[in-house]
Amino acid sequence: MAAKPVIVLVRPQLGENIGKAARAMLNFGLAEMRLVAPRDGWPNPSAGPAAAGADLVLEQAEVFESLADAVHDCANVYATTVRKRGVTKPVLTPEEAAREIHAQPGRSAFVFGPERSGLETDDVALSRAIVTVPINPEFGSLNLAQAVILCAYEWSKQADLVQPTTEDLLPPAPQDELEGMIGQFEALLEPRGYFRPPSRAAATRRTLRTMLTKPGWNHLEVRTMRGVLSALKRRPEEPEKG
Amino acid sequence: MAAKPVIVLVRPQLGENIGKAARAMLNFGLAEMRLVAPRDGWPNPSAGPAAAGADLVLEQAEVFESLADAVHDCANVYATTVRKRGVTKPVLTPEEAAREIHAQPGRSAFVFGPERSGLETDDVALSRAIVTVPINPEFGSLNLAQAVILCAYEWSKQADLVQPTTEDLLPPAPQDELEGMIGQFEALLEPRGYFRPPSRAAATRRTLRTMLTKPGWNHLEVRTMRGVLSALKRRPEEPEKG
Repeated sequence: MAAKPVIVLVRPQLGENIGKAARAMLNFGLAEMRLVAPRDGWPNPSAGPAAAGADLVLEQAEVFESLADAVHDCANVYATTVRKRGVTKPVLTPEEAAREIHAQPGRSAFVFGPERSGLETDDVALSRAIVTVPINPEFGSLNLAQAVILCAYEWSKQADLVQPTTEDLLPPAPQDELEGMIGQFEALLEPRGYFRPPSRAAATRRTLRTMLTKPGWNHLEVRTMRGVLSALKRRPEEPEKG
Repeated sequence: MAAKPVIVLVRPQLGENIGKAARAMLNFGLAEMRLVAPRDGWPNPSAGPAAAGADLVLEQAEVFESLADAVHDCANVYATTVRKRGVTKPVLTPEEAAREIHAQPGRSAFVFGPERSGLETDDVALSRAIVTVPINPEFGSLNLAQAVILCAYEWSKQADLVQPTTEDLLPPAPQDELEGMIGQFEALLEPRGYFRPPSRAAATRRTLRTMLTKPGWNHLEVRTMRGVLSALKRRPEEPEKG
């Protein structure tokens, strides 16, 4: 398996945003942050509170003077930009970049520019490819931590972290249980005139069966419905509200 | 093409987070926000600055008293939760949910709980499926706007794809029709002692609701079931066989 990508923040301005980026990363299993010339130095007291517990990421963050230094050991550098620039490099979505990162040997880095201005042309020039999040052309307003979380999320999706499973879902009840329930419906409805007139009875039974087959109720749900039917058969003890 | 999903925030606490959610939505082309009982009322002066230009979303946001009201016209309701609960509903990733939303007819809603506590069991019971973002099991700390942006992003990723729709299938009945049917069940069952003892009543109601929500019955099927219930309420004319 390929190594986890490094997240590089180039000249980040606010400590708070560095903390939020750390939190975004750790949610998706990324812990290696590198900072290039953070505006207010490092460590930054505003970062910790915003990290909401992802202090580990901040404590291990490394500071470099230039982007070239920060990605010195990285084989695959992806520069994130909001819009395409006049640079002749491949432009990938976060998903495509994540796929490459998982497939390639060597270390990879996602590089993010300063909050206000984004990466400069010289920073982009260092990268092998550009990553652009496809956003609403009429409202593009992704902040730094949001851009980080989308890249980290796409990486993690393909890393088989923890996929939610539906293993506690029971299978649909076997056909004979379903038939028993449908039979109970019919036995209650017949004496109450539901299947009249006789000319419509077959179609009405079919409609009922289709409706009751559709849910794929499991054993417990079929049993619940049978309990409901038994209750409905009883005479009401109090005046009905329905 | 299926309609864009609605984003429903249930009992959001901070106006700032409502604004951030609006910004997250609009980045990915979603503009319809619904608020259920926002803690500090609505409008909230803290929301605008955090929306960073997504004021349109806030101006058009609608406020409802209950989640059932907020999703009254939605056929496909997805409850987002951080972790699995003891609820037997399908658990989907945001990507899987987005795929369903694009493929299904009828309106869909992504539902998000309050910042601190998340959705309550009764809110989850209203939904057809649960959406869980697969995150780092050792550090799960997604905030509200981050959860919103991941769902909106996944929806948007698939918005360009032309999905074959199954247009001859009727969509699930809107939530208010479903509520009407569940209400009819309860009104019939209550005087027949189905919800006794009182200590079990809430759980029994939830089980009933989950079972009746699962099928995704369409308008016609809900009407059929309501006809069945009306028939069951009548006294039998002939001796019962069941």
